[in-house]
Amino acid sequence: MSERKYAIGVDFGTESGRVVLVDVADGREVATAVHNYANGVIDEKLPGTDIRLEPDWALQDPNDYLEVFKQAIPDILRESGVDPQDVVGLGIDFTACTMLPTKADGTPLCFLPEWREKPHAWVKLWKHHAAQPEANKLNEIARELGYSFLDRYGDKISSEWFFPKAWQILDEAPDVYEAADRLIEGADWVVWQLTGEEKRNSCTAGYKAIWSKREGFPPNQFFKALDPRMENIIDEKMSRDIYPLGAKAGGLTEEAARWTGLKPGTAVAIANVDAHVSVPAASVADPGRMVIIMGTSNCHMVLGSEEHVVPGMCGYVEDGIVPGFFGYEAGQSCVGDHFAWFVENCVPAAYQQEAEKRGLDIHRLLEEKAARLKPGESGLVALDWWNGNRSVLVDVDLTGMLLGATLATKPEEIYRALIEATAYGTRIIIETFEENGVPVDEIVATGGLPDRNKLLMQIYADVTGRPIHIAETRQGGAFGSAMHGAVAAGKAGGGYDTIVEAAQRMARLRDEAYHPISENKQVYDQLYAEYVTLYDYFGRGANDIMKRLKELRAEVLAHS
Amino acid sequence: MSERKYAIGVDFGTESGRVVLVDVADGREVATAVHNYANGVIDEKLPGTDIRLEPDWALQDPNDYLEVFKQAIPDILRESGVDPQDVVGLGIDFTACTMLPTKADGTPLCFLPEWREKPHAWVKLWKHHAAQPEANKLNEIARELGYSFLDRYGDKISSEWFFPKAWQILDEAPDVYEAADRLIEGADWVVWQLTGEEKRNSCTAGYKAIWSKREGFPPNQFFKALDPRMENIIDEKMSRDIYPLGAKAGGLTEEAARWTGLKPGTAVAIANVDAHVSVPAASVADPGRMVIIMGTSNCHMVLGSEEHVVPGMCGYVEDGIVPGFFGYEAGQSCVGDHFAWFVENCVPAAYQQEAEKRGLDIHRLLEEKAARLKPGESGLVALDWWNGNRSVLVDVDLTGMLLGATLATKPEEIYRALIEATAYGTRIIIETFEENGVPVDEIVATGGLPDRNKLLMQIYADVTGRPIHIAETRQGGAFGSAMHGAVAAGKAGGGYDTIVEAAQRMARLRDEAYHPISENKQVYDQLYAEYVTLYDYFGRGANDIMKRLKELRAEVLAHS
Repeated sequence: MSERKYAIGVDFGTESGRVVLVDVADGREVATAVHNYANGVIDEKLPGTDIRLEPDWALQDPNDYLEVFKQAIPDILRESGVDPQDVVGLGIDFTACTMLPTKADGTPLCFLPEWREKPHAWVKLWKHHAAQPEANKLNEIARELGYSFLDRYGDKISSEWFFPKAWQILDEAPDVYEAADRLIEGADWVVWQLTGEEKRNSCTAGYKAIWSKREGFPPNQFFKALDPRMENIIDEKMSRDIYPLGAKAGGLTEEAARWTGLKPGTAVAIANVDAHVSVPAASVADPGRMVIIMGTSNCHMVLGSEEHVVPGMCGYVEDGIVPGFFGYEAGQSCVGDHFAWFVENCVPAAYQQEAEKRGLDIHRLLEEKAARLKPGESGLVALDWWNGNRSVLVDVDLTGMLLGATLATKPEEIYRALIEATAYGTRIIIETFEENGVPVDEIVATGGLPDRNKLLMQIYADVTGRPIHIAETRQGGAFGSAMHGAVAAGKAGGGYDTIVEAAQRMARLRDEAYHPISENKQVYDQLYAEYVTLYDYFGRGANDIMKRLKELRAEVLAHS
Repeated sequence: MSERKYAIGVDFGTESGRVVLVDVADGREVATAVHNYANGVIDEKLPGTDIRLEPDWALQDPNDYLEVFKQAIPDILRESGVDPQDVVGLGIDFTACTMLPTKADGTPLCFLPEWREKPHAWVKLWKHHAAQPEANKLNEIARELGYSFLDRYGDKISSEWFFPKAWQILDEAPDVYEAADRLIEGADWVVWQLTGEEKRNSCTAGYKAIWSKREGFPPNQFFKALDPRMENIIDEKMSRDIYPLGAKAGGLTEEAARWTGLKPGTAVAIANVDAHVSVPAASVADPGRMVIIMGTSNCHMVLGSEEHVVPGMCGYVEDGIVPGFFGYEAGQSCVGDHFAWFVENCVPAAYQQEAEKRGLDIHRLLEEKAARLKPGESGLVALDWWNGNRSVLVDVDLTGMLLGATLATKPEEIYRALIEATAYGTRIIIETFEENGVPVDEIVATGGLPDRNKLLMQIYADVTGRPIHIAETRQGGAFGSAMHGAVAAGKAGGGYDTIVEAAQRMARLRDEAYHPISENKQVYDQLYAEYVTLYDYFGRGANDIMKRLKELRAEVLAHS
């Protein structure tokens, strides 16, 4: 035993689990380990069988999660040489909604031979999109019956969320539904495996399962209206006991201690969601600073002291990110994905050759060329809807647009216009928050893009007119989970009593920051006004050409 | 002397002169020769000097035109073995407005040592764009004073046309203007050199010099309002005697006979313009069939029995294409240029490699891939304004737009969308003609594109809902000039009495034709409706974003 205390965070991603060991005193990242899931994303056939899955399905194997505990935690202990006695707590975060049916003792149905060949017995991963018909019906019924909970979710429950997925099981495999004593988020299930106690977290309940601290779940009549067999789903297969983030779920069981090499009784935190746990990891535990996870898509989170209905948000949940605050979430469905598309489909051979000759990544070459342009110089404006619009329009049928091209337009001008369009999209989200009572004074960026594209960061600062800081940790999920592990331990146990305190001591921003350049901002204000006009014209019903083109496309393909 | 009779056509292009020898009886093309201008397009410095030209200048050397007569006509006589006695007539066509100042005897000022170092003494080529300030002032004054002639030219006199160019000479080199006894189109000047007689043609006078058969030139007061020194420009430096197309300008002089090897007295036709002479060359000498010259840009010409003001046209001239009819002209400023831009800037390396591997031109590869798509399948609609819009909006400040992109959009889909956009642009021109009383029942295509892109031709047929035939000759200008040469000779001289008769006997269509496919047409009707909505929204003032972006761009660049 040393004087230094440590916490462990485990981030369950889509393809792998990542574990980090962090010094509780100062947030130093001592060791990291990654364990790839043996069965990864199951989207073609069930492991060990010839049973093929339908399109849009995406499953996982719960055993892969346990292997992360069994492989990666011993790995970091070995690598770091840290004494397990000095590890005071452990937290986890998970993709969500990622859910599974289990028996009353927590055994996943898919572990049982009699259910193993039923696809519905496995874990439905967040990106399982086959419950769209159920989501559509659910939204329709909720609207018809006038349930106000839709307001909290930008007027739409996604097919990725808990009840559409549960309902799909009932629709397509009523025997699996019947056999499932519990329907549970993967996040809560792994905590259950560590502690022996089923304790559900407020983050997934709030953001994915229509729960709120004040109203609880929708009433049984709502579920009955969906399907009479679902009337009592909450009491039969879920739980009304929802625990706040940072709370202690329990101590490590003897068995889990053997898996991990940690000591029995080590504090385990209530589970969390990958995105939301990144907020305190980015040092944010109070209102006014928006955290944006920037990668293939953008996820925007901000805390508010009051409850406000903000149009087109992904959701807001009291205590959903940091206890004591409303956690608001918004999103852009296509950010890095734009640039990947552009590089694959629109970059001429001459640019590829130049990049190869100079040993540059093609994105770097484009960034270099685009950085030489001034704001407004390209004469281009784009709508960043190549993958629809999440916030604030919540419309997957919107498509991309580029305007202003001439015979002199160069690839780097289009590339820059796409970056700018995503920045305008972020600004419209920020302004929608502010117009509805949720202030956003500055931005903290995290995720993969801030590291990789300085031009993009400066454009975001110039367009939004807000300073942008960067979280020091490059593994926001696992780091934030470790912070929650420290809070589960409490001050008395060598950690902290609140996530606010943990954020002050453990989380850090980099020295580099991006500040708006006023002459750029002036030009971008004009361009943003143009963007908003197009946004409203194409996105709010004045000209639904994008939807009509999609419908026509579907018709044409159906007849071929 | 044989029984067969021949006519010669000379097409004066931008970089070279092309001569064709044609059998008068059946239009067989016996021989062709091309002579490249020694001084080509003069846009950097005056030949033999260090005198630099301003941006937007484009001059030519009139001696290069004479060399075409001296080199290329003897060449085809030699090559064909045709007896000069059997050549009954000669016609020429020219780029326009391409104009020059001369002395009273036709000697170009730039041939005289005292003027040779003055840029304004040389030929101003059609694409000399430095007279824009004069064009702007001219349009403003004409509008202010309410001159109705603007109606005939889509409300705008182009900087490329005769009076802006003449006025620029006066503005910038009053001594050159003063010394010029004549200001004359290159077309009329070369005919003068052949025949010794200055006879001006109705085509350039009508389309480029604001002349009409009924009203003549604008009144002297108009020119006085431009500049008092120009009050008598018509009577001092031009002529009010304007001759119809197909008329005989005169016979070859002894000197011109020596240059060419033809016999003195050979009939020479009144001059013509390259585009317009392509109409009878495409067998069209009556209303209802539109000729489209398809290349880097599109030029649309159609004959009408009555006078109609058609909005946004390039111009209409009575007897301007075929005597007895009103010749209407419209244009699209960017067609082949779109595809060239796309190939240079947007085609990924993988496609270039595939094309190389298969020994295909990249345009052919894109055409092959795009041809596999059904109409409507891409979900894309574009506005074909990469180089502004000539007809029907007459607005150089409009820019290109592409709408409907997703992460699955492929390069060939964008390529096809650009082709489709130019087809919609042609359809809107056709509909504007028809709405204003000028019927268009079918299309005859000529120029470079019809040979090179079958997909494009089918799309034009499907979008416009009209059959498209292709002119047999691949050299519409020179061939049409030869036809006019035959008409200048007249029946008595071994040719024909009218261009209508010449068109019936000499001009031919290919067997291949493109007919609208009704299921494609149905889809394109829907897409065209979408195009028109966008066209009106962005092109007619509802949202002038394109102009604002151009202005912002100019401001940004001015401050850098």
